[in-house]
Amino acid sequence: MAYPAGLVDLIDDLHQQGVNEAVICPGSRNAPIMLALVRHGGFRCYSIADERSAGFFGLGLALKSKKPVILCCTSGSAGLNFAPAVVEAFFQEVPLIVLTADRPAEWIGQWDGQTIYQNHLYGKHVKHFESFEAFQPHQLVQQALNFPQGPVHMNIPIAEPFYPAKGEELPLRTSPVASQPVNAVFTWEKGLLDGISHQKCLITVGQRPYDEAENKLFEQLALKGIPIIGDASANLPSACEINHDLLLANESLWPNLQADFHIHFGKSFVSKRIKQMMRQFKPAKSYLVHPNPIERPDPFQSLTDVIQTDTLSVLEELVTKDLQVNASLNTWNPTIQQAFFEKKNWNELHIYNAIIQQISKQDAEIHVGNSLAIRYINWTAAKLHGTEVFSNRGTSGIDGSLSTAVGASQSTNKLTVALLGDVSFHYDRNALWNNYVGPNMRIIVMNNAGGAIFQILDGAKDLAELGEFMVTKQRNTAENSAKDAGLSYLNAHDFNELDSVLSDFFAPSTTGKVLEIFTDSTQNTEALQSYMALFKH
Amino acid sequence: MAYPAGLVDLIDDLHQQGVNEAVICPGSRNAPIMLALVRHGGFRCYSIADERSAGFFGLGLALKSKKPVILCCTSGSAGLNFAPAVVEAFFQEVPLIVLTADRPAEWIGQWDGQTIYQNHLYGKHVKHFESFEAFQPHQLVQQALNFPQGPVHMNIPIAEPFYPAKGEELPLRTSPVASQPVNAVFTWEKGLLDGISHQKCLITVGQRPYDEAENKLFEQLALKGIPIIGDASANLPSACEINHDLLLANESLWPNLQADFHIHFGKSFVSKRIKQMMRQFKPAKSYLVHPNPIERPDPFQSLTDVIQTDTLSVLEELVTKDLQVNASLNTWNPTIQQAFFEKKNWNELHIYNAIIQQISKQDAEIHVGNSLAIRYINWTAAKLHGTEVFSNRGTSGIDGSLSTAVGASQSTNKLTVALLGDVSFHYDRNALWNNYVGPNMRIIVMNNAGGAIFQILDGAKDLAELGEFMVTKQRNTAENSAKDAGLSYLNAHDFNELDSVLSDFFAPSTTGKVLEIFTDSTQNTEALQSYMALFKH
Repeated sequence: MAYPAGLVDLIDDLHQQGVNEAVICPGSRNAPIMLALVRHGGFRCYSIADERSAGFFGLGLALKSKKPVILCCTSGSAGLNFAPAVVEAFFQEVPLIVLTADRPAEWIGQWDGQTIYQNHLYGKHVKHFESFEAFQPHQLVQQALNFPQGPVHMNIPIAEPFYPAKGEELPLRTSPVASQPVNAVFTWEKGLLDGISHQKCLITVGQRPYDEAENKLFEQLALKGIPIIGDASANLPSACEINHDLLLANESLWPNLQADFHIHFGKSFVSKRIKQMMRQFKPAKSYLVHPNPIERPDPFQSLTDVIQTDTLSVLEELVTKDLQVNASLNTWNPTIQQAFFEKKNWNELHIYNAIIQQISKQDAEIHVGNSLAIRYINWTAAKLHGTEVFSNRGTSGIDGSLSTAVGASQSTNKLTVALLGDVSFHYDRNALWNNYVGPNMRIIVMNNAGGAIFQILDGAKDLAELGEFMVTKQRNTAENSAKDAGLSYLNAHDFNELDSVLSDFFAPSTTGKVLEIFTDSTQNTEALQSYMALFKH
Repeated sequence: MAYPAGLVDLIDDLHQQGVNEAVICPGSRNAPIMLALVRHGGFRCYSIADERSAGFFGLGLALKSKKPVILCCTSGSAGLNFAPAVVEAFFQEVPLIVLTADRPAEWIGQWDGQTIYQNHLYGKHVKHFESFEAFQPHQLVQQALNFPQGPVHMNIPIAEPFYPAKGEELPLRTSPVASQPVNAVFTWEKGLLDGISHQKCLITVGQRPYDEAENKLFEQLALKGIPIIGDASANLPSACEINHDLLLANESLWPNLQADFHIHFGKSFVSKRIKQMMRQFKPAKSYLVHPNPIERPDPFQSLTDVIQTDTLSVLEELVTKDLQVNASLNTWNPTIQQAFFEKKNWNELHIYNAIIQQISKQDAEIHVGNSLAIRYINWTAAKLHGTEVFSNRGTSGIDGSLSTAVGASQSTNKLTVALLGDVSFHYDRNALWNNYVGPNMRIIVMNNAGGAIFQILDGAKDLAELGEFMVTKQRNTAENSAKDAGLSYLNAHDFNELDSVLSDFFAPSTTGKVLEIFTDSTQNTEALQSYMALFKH
């Protein structure tokens, strides 16, 4: 076996830095990498056949561990199928280490099998690309661990033969262990916040992981009367309590929220309305808190500077300040919303509300699909206070929501709930085509027979082409996919059925479960329209 | 509606050049492109939700029409899911026109939803990239039609609103129709073939479409005693008659085939043995016939020059030459093979032979999966003389074999047979998640419960990690996926069952059909090994 010299050393260097999970996709040319990972003994290795799903599965693992996860595949188009997950990881800032096996360089472009241009395969969507060279110092290890977190890619040319002879051992590492990466220290001028006292402040929080310590400080600021706006993906109960997206439907409130001083924590926002408000009533100063952003992301088109440090440091400083109270958000009156949800009509809005109520009682984590699902959970009266919310909002794609959830479910005993529409479910049904869908997995498929988001978009809903080319009516149910994966399957067509299956659905069991909920998209649209009209006063 | 100025003109320019099929993936931002295509009236438009499958479906359409097919998707990760098909099209030289909708440039990198770096998304794997600009002359039209055929990509930034007001018409075209692309004329020095008379010649034929006129000339050369070597994907019955891959297992024959003058037609080869032989016994001169190759592909590592023209021109010249007879290939003795296939044991080799016999009696086209399927059909005694063979040999990926077949089935009344393994089937099962799986579709799934090719590779088959990390044992059958798609499902576990279902399977019907054949991979491997041993004399 012409085992690639130094490969064992590279894999061990990654392990020395705490990397300990790998998703390996079957192939022949990547066998030496597979063997280095499996035989190292320090890695939990997963085998998944569909690389698109495997990529998102790895993303799910990394979302939970917050450490880089290795993705490994063979040469050719395999690596292309990782791309949707790699790009999601880039924008969501989740660490992945992609190791693609390749032919030796002289075979590229020679019409040899499984040979494509693998160098720089992901373009600008990785933080770092590098080609493997034996015993060279690899920047990969440092880059994989540095801020901002994100994907890195190494292409590894491997010559035949790929397999050790019977009984042959892999080589032992021979190079010294790479030195510990130096974690960059970010300094920020605390003076930046000096002028803030008695100013009109506004805090916005984009997508971020749940963090107890940070949330306590956010809570203190909210109690002081500082407006804090965040979606469900901000994982900040104090911000979610008030339904900003609905409140801001009343545009007369917008000027009151205009700030002298605005600070944004976390990443992207779901709500378009908050962005519209901020872009119209720009703050005098607007800061993004981020240790090391790759570009200068400016979702509100108001950015004046970046505070290059972590969220906690800034919050600790902020709570010491004497800030101007702004009660604008307290005008939120939940009674209108409560009245609406008291009548339980069979439409998605009411169903999401009922489901969120139930999920919030469970010891669970939730992965919310893109398109309508992530919007609905921002609109319901029921809120997810103790449930960490995940969603692929880096690219907002539907291509890997379910696989991400299955990956994330590996390292928790909590129920892992995936809540998504029928199109998202079927797009990514290969998420269930592996041996890792465990008994803690709970999948809720909202089946409205197509991509119903297009039916609520003004303009789109009147197009003659809507049904065929946007909604893409589809007739599949999730039942057969659930059967293939050995999962229990429940369904509901009305509230009687839903109420009777929900406790069974959340009950512990030896297999995962799928609950499919059938609704009529016309009724869903009508309910949503009448609901939204309540807030445009 | 801020309809992109000049978009209607671009789409009409493409139509004026003969482009008339488009695969449209649902989205909001690409609605203006969708409307331009659907309302033009000159395009057959298909709607497919999973972009990975949609890309290969479009590839299948283009394989049949040999004209560029449009793929259209929304912004974000959607376009990444086209990548496996785009790259296959690049290496297989199939024309595709990828139109990706995008945010206006100022929103890129701003953490806005569905926003990635879409410019140059496919890197070196498209012939041409261009960003849409209103009323600019577009090279896209020319590049899409030029040789070599292959994918081109245009990114189209689109601002809101995306939809026309109720009753609003799209703008009429205002710019003059782009001039007819000038088809490059390729000239070649016919003198190149002057010295060929009385030399020892060898012709190899890689993957190419079936072509009646060319095949007649190849036939003449074969009858003259010129050795012609080609796989099943060469679509050249006269070359397939003799089983070169098995014949060349006898290495003592190799020196006899060493040529003074070698000409290669078509593209890639499946057989590794022929490549090994050629690399060891290099011809004095070696020519590739190709009108305009992007690189200088040299699968045999022997290339001395490229003859820049089409296959027919060179064949017409070749048949006038007085070439040296070389009877090496006539040493092929089919009796050993025939004796082997007379005993019908239940293993893949015997089953493939039986199936190929049946398919060759049908009026059919066949799409053969990668990995084992494409190899088996080169090894069987039964041959596909009247059946055009398609296979994704550009990248040799398993990611879109079934979708390609479904796409290709749209424009033929012949039976379209997809013959593939269980892993390829499930990887691409979303091929069946659309409204275009017609009654002429026939899918044969060879279910050996995993990626069995790894079990026949020397070295790999003895690895402890084989089962979990290479074969990827999988338990799904195709039955539930067939049900979801509304297809008939048949299966067979022995020759009695197979013989009794085959005529039903190929009989006309109102829906497509799936036939799943269950085998034991250990028995398959043993049969293959004893078969191969017969030829190493």
